[in-house]
Amino acid sequence: MMKVGWIGTGIMGRSMAEHLIKAGYSLQVYNRTPSKSESLIELGAKFASISEIAQSSDVVFTMVGYPSDVEEVILSPLGLLQNMKPGSLLIDHTTSSPSLAVRISQEAEKKNVLVLDAPVSGGDIGAREARLAIMIGGSEEAFNRGLELMKHYGKNIELMGPAGCGQHTKITNQIVIASSMVGMVEGLSYAVKSGLDAEKVINLLNTGAAANFSLKVYGPRVLRGDLEPGFLVEHFVKDLGMALEECKRMNLSLPGLAMVNQLYLSLIANGEGRKGTQALIKVIERLNGIKISPNN
Amino acid sequence: MMKVGWIGTGIMGRSMAEHLIKAGYSLQVYNRTPSKSESLIELGAKFASISEIAQSSDVVFTMVGYPSDVEEVILSPLGLLQNMKPGSLLIDHTTSSPSLAVRISQEAEKKNVLVLDAPVSGGDIGAREARLAIMIGGSEEAFNRGLELMKHYGKNIELMGPAGCGQHTKITNQIVIASSMVGMVEGLSYAVKSGLDAEKVINLLNTGAAANFSLKVYGPRVLRGDLEPGFLVEHFVKDLGMALEECKRMNLSLPGLAMVNQLYLSLIANGEGRKGTQALIKVIERLNGIKISPNN
Repeated sequence: MMKVGWIGTGIMGRSMAEHLIKAGYSLQVYNRTPSKSESLIELGAKFASISEIAQSSDVVFTMVGYPSDVEEVILSPLGLLQNMKPGSLLIDHTTSSPSLAVRISQEAEKKNVLVLDAPVSGGDIGAREARLAIMIGGSEEAFNRGLELMKHYGKNIELMGPAGCGQHTKITNQIVIASSMVGMVEGLSYAVKSGLDAEKVINLLNTGAAANFSLKVYGPRVLRGDLEPGFLVEHFVKDLGMALEECKRMNLSLPGLAMVNQLYLSLIANGEGRKGTQALIKVIERLNGIKISPNN
Repeated sequence: MMKVGWIGTGIMGRSMAEHLIKAGYSLQVYNRTPSKSESLIELGAKFASISEIAQSSDVVFTMVGYPSDVEEVILSPLGLLQNMKPGSLLIDHTTSSPSLAVRISQEAEKKNVLVLDAPVSGGDIGAREARLAIMIGGSEEAFNRGLELMKHYGKNIELMGPAGCGQHTKITNQIVIASSMVGMVEGLSYAVKSGLDAEKVINLLNTGAAANFSLKVYGPRVLRGDLEPGFLVEHFVKDLGMALEECKRMNLSLPGLAMVNQLYLSLIANGEGRKGTQALIKVIERLNGIKISPNN
């Protein structure tokens, strides 16, 4: 039986790993805060150290927080690559830096370990309901070996190109979302300020050329005063920062992205990093001394 | 039999008026360039002057270009309001200024003419296929009387509030689209620059949280080098200008809208006002000295 390791059992990682356990795989898990692995251990997973997991697994998944965490877990002396078996497979689901993904792939090749950068999209609901989009960079061989496992929690699973291409695709995704969020909060602010019934506006607009996921999903939350995280502001700011870093590396000037990044930094400046990304409405509210989202 | 007048038989107006003729209404039409009314005259419409139409119609529709055209056609001494019968109905489908719509409504009340501001969304295809969204400002009485006719070319027809609310809703629509277009062209630029297959990226992104109409409809056009107008840059710049004017009037600061307006002005500066709105890619191309949309 294939032995599977899972590093990082936060909200997303836990749901994804759970699908593997339920599919019959034997899992060893690790998390910096061990209590977050408890629900998986109750289902039969074993808690182990990173190097134990590395030594005994055929496939290891990582789903951690920041690129610095990815670097530590995968590239440090006590980390995965120093300890994984030749011929084993490493799949990083963290949204992280494309350049780091390329570096990991180069190191992995030296150790004869296969590796995929495989960030996901779809949030905690997508993870629970096993319908995540997974954007993958790496070799076809690695992709074909990992596919069987990822199918237990992924729906649209696409090999986008060589190492780093999964992360590049995720960054593209975040760039598109960034501007959508601005359109959503500015549109709602205009609608409310001009005296319209903003909920009615959302419903009408979503039938036409203005239709988008941000307006449909986050618009109603803004109007009923729900700024709780689907996706955390501080994680989005991490992603936008990586996007801008890659843009700098490639000499790519994207004025919209740069502006949205500044607007989101204003949320961090106001201590709102733990709210959901729809909290961007607060920036427009403060700019104008108005209230669009109630009870906030 | 109800007598119907139609002022403005450009691409949109012609399709809409045609649906009324085919539904059995007798139409008098006017257009500044009479040749653009020929196809309607072949179907049985009669060409007449604005004042003739005003005097003899129970309902008059206008679908002209700019707010200045609306003002001339409706408010000038030889225009509609001076000549329409008490109790008749005027429906302006032009995307125009909310403040002008309020002014027209006040003048109409003095003449005992009912009036609706009723901009549409859905483009030439929506007009041909009779599935336009129509966003309406005005009284319930006027709305109920106009509904029967508008149903022949509209699908989502909503009374959004009193005079001006149709135009405010359309402006909200354009504000949301404006930022979506930036997200689309910047996302595609990042995807191409980072070596991804941008078409594959569009398909994957449209299954998740980045999904939006601009990416789905205009993204593929950009990639195959098709910058022909669905919607003209110069008309979008008109709409963004009205949006900013209303924002100024209401003291509403919308940094995203302001920036997108500047980017679109760059297309005008480069003589690209007659291209479609997806030509925004040219701005990002010139900023970066790269080519994303071929053959342009």
